[in-house]
Amino acid sequence: MPIQYIFEIIGTVVFAISGALAAGEKSGKDWFGVTFVGFITAIGGGSLRDMLLGSYPLVWVNDVNFIYAIIAGVVIMRLFYNSLDKYRRELSLFDTMGIALFTILGTEKTIELGFHPVIAAIMGMFTAVMGGVIRDTLTNSTPVIFRKEIYATACLGGAILFLILNQFDIHRTANFIISGLFIISIRIMAVYFKWSIPKFG
Amino acid sequence: MPIQYIFEIIGTVVFAISGALAAGEKSGKDWFGVTFVGFITAIGGGSLRDMLLGSYPLVWVNDVNFIYAIIAGVVIMRLFYNSLDKYRRELSLFDTMGIALFTILGTEKTIELGFHPVIAAIMGMFTAVMGGVIRDTLTNSTPVIFRKEIYATACLGGAILFLILNQFDIHRTANFIISGLFIISIRIMAVYFKWSIPKFG
Amino acid sequence: MPIQYIFEIIGTVVFAISGALAAGEKSGKDWFGVTFVGFITAIGGGSLRDMLLGSYPLVWVNDVNFIYAIIAGVVIMRLFYNSLDKYRRELSLFDTMGIALFTILGTEKTIELGFHPVIAAIMGMFTAVMGGVIRDTLTNSTPVIFRKEIYATACLGGAILFLILNQFDIHRTANFIISGLFIISIRIMAVYFKWSIPKFG
Repeated sequence: MPIQYIFEIIGTVVFAISGALAAGEKSGKDWFGVTFVGFITAIGGGSLRDMLLGSYPLVWVNDVNFIYAIIAGVVIMRLFYNSLDKYRRELSLFDTMGIALFTILGTEKTIELGFHPVIAAIMGMFTAVMGGVIRDTLTNSTPVIFRKEIYATACLGGAILFLILNQFDIHRTANFIISGLFIISIRIMAVYFKWSIPKFG
Repeated sequence: MPIQYIFEIIGTVVFAISGALAAGEKSGKDWFGVTFVGFITAIGGGSLRDMLLGSYPLVWVNDVNFIYAIIAGVVIMRLFYNSLDKYRRELSLFDTMGIALFTILGTEKTIELGFHPVIAAIMGMFTAVMGGVIRDTLTNSTPVIFRKEIYATACLGGAILFLILNQFDIHRTANFIISGLFIISIRIMAVYFKWSIPKFG
Repeated sequence: MPIQYIFEIIGTVVFAISGALAAGEKSGKDWFGVTFVGFITAIGGGSLRDMLLGSYPLVWVNDVNFIYAIIAGVVIMRLFYNSLDKYRRELSLFDTMGIALFTILGTEKTIELGFHPVIAAIMGMFTAVMGGVIRDTLTNSTPVIFRKEIYATACLGGAILFLILNQFDIHRTANFIISGLFIISIRIMAVYFKWSIPKFG
């Protein structure tokens, strides 16, 4: 079983957890609603990427393990639900790990399909953030990319770092880890030091 | 003309009616807006299913009869518009019939394309509910699947029933009718007995 | 370099400008958010059209010039940002030019791919308005097609005019200009004379 597949499954569980958390916090959500939102969050970004690239079949449509991974994520979320306030910081780390994983997986897949590095960086970021954007749109929230300012930008930065290191003779797994940790570090520091992107106007 | 085609056209008219009803109830909608919302409601779920499965060409893109069916649905809606309050129950039955029809059509199509039954059940439900979800997102309403609690779940149940009966030596049309009536019955009983899905938290 | 390509690039710059304007006017948007909204506005309609038609690869995914055109549009927008109030009328003309261009480009592409004229007219309108619809949905605004009443309808009218003239022996470029100017004129007159579509109810 290749390491990339294991990472994709882990990323899916992690994103389902973060999606179920977002949905569960809105009062009145039932099991179906929470699972649906966890599902959309987990598969939204990768599905959009593959549909834009015309890369069929979509990963999860051809492999039900991704569906089981999502159900596992929702159940895990439920187990920790009553002690959410105690583990809030750890839970937000799940989302950060998820976007780091999915950014690199999406960037790598796009470049391997033969597309231009600029497109690969955009698709890496899309893989990471668009599941959350669709989730927020469905739940009538302000999309995450407009709220947390260093969020999608960290993904874009990590994707670009991955593409640059990819030009040199660096082992793929090493590059994967370096670029992933870069995204995680930027996100954590951005929250800690309250970094933000300059305003447009 | 195969029975499946007739069902698809009927489902399209019915969904255009229910979409036009939802749009028309928002004050200030003009003919274009109502037709647009009827259109999105009618083709949204099936289009999303086919785009996720990579099943091209999309049904309505290759057959303008679906466009005429949508226009017919909007016109029918307008004819009954002034007596809406009298026929409200009948109109909500249209939506229920639409989701029942589209669930089974979507499940069957996915399984015939060779996908896993779990994916077929999800796609059946998507075919039925995602047109309404897109409609609600565009009109800034809470998506229908988060409001009516036994709604998408009834579709999912009907899709699973269809897939189980499909394993046995039951005639396709009989299975179609049984599973469709199952969805309609669940929905009607859910409204009547005020059934709901257990809360997540 | 064919004239159609030049028009597509111009349309992309123009739509990125109109998207960045819409995003920038919402207070608190940073550079990333504005660029993201400009991007979605510029590529949303054409991407949806190509995904619905199954016409892969998507134009911008295979040609990074479209990405540079979007960045150019956002930078141009920033340069004029402090004198926005002075140039408001000129800027709204950009959006009108964008929808006229994209309607005809989308209609022509669909008809050239061999689809039915009714589908071509719908896809022409989608190319023009759906980027703005996605933009408005993401920023929690009422979609543009529900607000400005003669907007999508002008596109639909222009697409139909293009398809009719296409039946006669009219030069493609002449048809392009006539149908495009038709859309622009309808939009300008609709704003000036406060035209609107009849209410549904």
